[in-house]
Amino acid sequence: MQPVLDYLDQNRERFIRELCDYVRFPSVSAQPQHRKDLEACAAWLKNHCESIGLQTRLCSTAGNPIVVAKTPRKPGSKRPHFLVYGHYDVQPPEPFELWKTPPFEPRIEGRTLFGRGSSDNKGQHLAHLNAVEAYLKTGTELPCDITFVIEGEEEVGSSNLGIFLKENQAELACEGIIISDNGIPSLKHPALTYALRGILAIEVILHGPSRDLHSGIYGGSVNNPAMALCQLLAGLRDKNGRITIPGFYDDVVKLSTFEKKQLARLPFNEDAFRKFMGVPELFGEKGFTSVEQRTARPTLEINGLTSGYQGEGSKTIVPSWARAKITFRLVPDQKPDKLRKIVLAHLKKLCPPNVRMEVKSGHGGEPYIVSPTGPQARAAMRALKEAFGHEPVLMREGGSIPIVNDFKKLLKAETLLLGLALPDDNAHSPNEKFDLDCFEKGMRMGAFLWRELAS
Amino acid sequence: MQPVLDYLDQNRERFIRELCDYVRFPSVSAQPQHRKDLEACAAWLKNHCESIGLQTRLCSTAGNPIVVAKTPRKPGSKRPHFLVYGHYDVQPPEPFELWKTPPFEPRIEGRTLFGRGSSDNKGQHLAHLNAVEAYLKTGTELPCDITFVIEGEEEVGSSNLGIFLKENQAELACEGIIISDNGIPSLKHPALTYALRGILAIEVILHGPSRDLHSGIYGGSVNNPAMALCQLLAGLRDKNGRITIPGFYDDVVKLSTFEKKQLARLPFNEDAFRKFMGVPELFGEKGFTSVEQRTARPTLEINGLTSGYQGEGSKTIVPSWARAKITFRLVPDQKPDKLRKIVLAHLKKLCPPNVRMEVKSGHGGEPYIVSPTGPQARAAMRALKEAFGHEPVLMREGGSIPIVNDFKKLLKAETLLLGLALPDDNAHSPNEKFDLDCFEKGMRMGAFLWRELAS
Repeated sequence: MQPVLDYLDQNRERFIRELCDYVRFPSVSAQPQHRKDLEACAAWLKNHCESIGLQTRLCSTAGNPIVVAKTPRKPGSKRPHFLVYGHYDVQPPEPFELWKTPPFEPRIEGRTLFGRGSSDNKGQHLAHLNAVEAYLKTGTELPCDITFVIEGEEEVGSSNLGIFLKENQAELACEGIIISDNGIPSLKHPALTYALRGILAIEVILHGPSRDLHSGIYGGSVNNPAMALCQLLAGLRDKNGRITIPGFYDDVVKLSTFEKKQLARLPFNEDAFRKFMGVPELFGEKGFTSVEQRTARPTLEINGLTSGYQGEGSKTIVPSWARAKITFRLVPDQKPDKLRKIVLAHLKKLCPPNVRMEVKSGHGGEPYIVSPTGPQARAAMRALKEAFGHEPVLMREGGSIPIVNDFKKLLKAETLLLGLALPDDNAHSPNEKFDLDCFEKGMRMGAFLWRELAS
Repeated sequence: MQPVLDYLDQNRERFIRELCDYVRFPSVSAQPQHRKDLEACAAWLKNHCESIGLQTRLCSTAGNPIVVAKTPRKPGSKRPHFLVYGHYDVQPPEPFELWKTPPFEPRIEGRTLFGRGSSDNKGQHLAHLNAVEAYLKTGTELPCDITFVIEGEEEVGSSNLGIFLKENQAELACEGIIISDNGIPSLKHPALTYALRGILAIEVILHGPSRDLHSGIYGGSVNNPAMALCQLLAGLRDKNGRITIPGFYDDVVKLSTFEKKQLARLPFNEDAFRKFMGVPELFGEKGFTSVEQRTARPTLEINGLTSGYQGEGSKTIVPSWARAKITFRLVPDQKPDKLRKIVLAHLKKLCPPNVRMEVKSGHGGEPYIVSPTGPQARAAMRALKEAFGHEPVLMREGGSIPIVNDFKKLLKAETLLLGLALPDDNAHSPNEKFDLDCFEKGMRMGAFLWRELAS
């Protein structure tokens, strides 16, 4: 094992340089104009995997290609097989003006690397690649076979990964999946995440008059779609932060006393958190702690509002239409398909007859939960402790990694969520960053993990 | 008089060409990038006024220049003096994609001229200029002195015109003001407008977290400013279309039985109007006819909503802020300054403590009302009848021409509102147009008007 750890130490500068190279690709999957950047990024990743000794191929899909990279297999070997999942696509960088330096020009300040995708998710899966590189380049025998599956559509719902998994089910059959695409409370609180929230995305457009109307000449005689949209959405959440859609909470599994206790172990300072969020006051569903609100309770968030005049000054119109982009976060055992029907039926019921409602269905992903006390989870906890030098915690994650459910269904394997991001890493926000200590401890964790999992 | 009318007939083709030239200037006062276009437009207008024999000057202001053009005065003359007001600035053309042809490339189809500013307001005041040109070029003695005051900031609240009027009070002192900047129900219903709605513009911005947040990691623990904005605005209007802000209706003067009768004379077909608006159902304040809702009742309109992600696909964020652009239409005797205070106090009271509210005050304009039976109004009714060949109607207008109140206060004169636009002229909308019959009958009306006013 020591040669592996030494290799990681000796190559740390190069690893950082390579991460910078990787972050430079504006691989924004939500924006069609970046299609070529995604291809270039995938090509870079394929080359990198090959150069460290992995058997690599680029698998084309209906969307962006998937990079599959495997440790060299020994013929007839009965070694366990694990899969490492990651994604090379990133969130849109907008609004650009809030970035201190350009999102795709990585910048290092102290022990922090700034750049879109640095922690979500390029830096996190690169740590795993570096750990495996250390095994391969030092000739240290890996106690298991490993396959990296790194896709390019996570930020837009991974719609082609499921098809890919189905088509490659036999090759990908494995004992477990490792994903580092989430966070830990601090470097002193390495964590295994045992639950994820699901997601349901919809877009609601209310159509009013066939064109923007002069608000003086016509205002007062037709409903204003922007006002109708506000009224439609306003009623969906009450003053206690509870979603009012009938049936919305029906399938929510309540937190057990054990879980509440585990979540209460997580470090949390309300005032510091409020300041970090930059809000005058926190707000969430009544009756739950902030940690519970963010990880174990479903939510409705308006992600975007668009209607009428957006420019400087004023334009005195009744806008022709108004649009809201909405995502729900779901918790076990809520199902996105069932909730989509419930939500649409409720919206239809609420929509006044003087506007026409159009609803576009976006992506959906089921919530995930796994027992935190199984043998693989215990192995991961040992690797975490050894790499970080601190007692790991058990936590739930508020974000969604819908693919975890596909892995469970298609590969019949559970996923270990071993995030490396810090709470202030600004994933999905301007000035996204990745802590270089997380990067390096993540590589060590990766190195220990294979030993512990195979033992 | 006949030479004047003949001249108008003989020059109709040139008048249309000149109107096209005038419409070609993208004189959008709300958008700073068009500052130079406004200057070029004002210069064109000054040249035009000079070329038809008016004593013309360009008066600079803190904003866009004002064109002042006077008929040649006779020394010692005691002729009455009238002022014609217009504006050469236009509404923003957005959204461009809804225009059948580019907004600043005038296109004639049958008897219709399409282009931004064609009816609001370039075509309308050009009709008056053409009528006066006919007097001057045929050597027909004008029975009165006329001064044209054509400004470039009407669409952004005419904030510099008041100062200009004050500074030139003596020169501009007059018996009455003529404004053609509104509409008539049809070519068979020429109209004198005896009341206008006022306006109050505000912008409400709710600030939530200091940056866009990952809706998975943080969603549930802070209020979403887009939702907070929807909830704030939704409560401002009830299901009967009534504004719920306490005190909002306190100063509204009720319609008299006479007025209700006059307004009921206006042609109105509900089904045709609904189809023209392109809505599934009309909607307005309960207890009032559609005409009353649009002209004699105050309104609250959301002109624009902006928050979070506006692009394609989805972005799973809690947006950092949400903004609404709002205008109220006011009726006699509501005062914008008083209502601004009432509205802001109410918004402040409604705003939850977990977001920070910022309110930007936009322009305001008082409503206007004048007796429709005075001698000047009767003179205008005679000119209308003669020019259009139909019995004119009396109407109220839903739009705002705030400057009318400045004229009243500063020049102590009432305004005659003699609009030339048709109801489907798409003022403030894509595909704005001007009817060339309205243009030509408007010139004739202008010609008759001076005779009738001076008699």
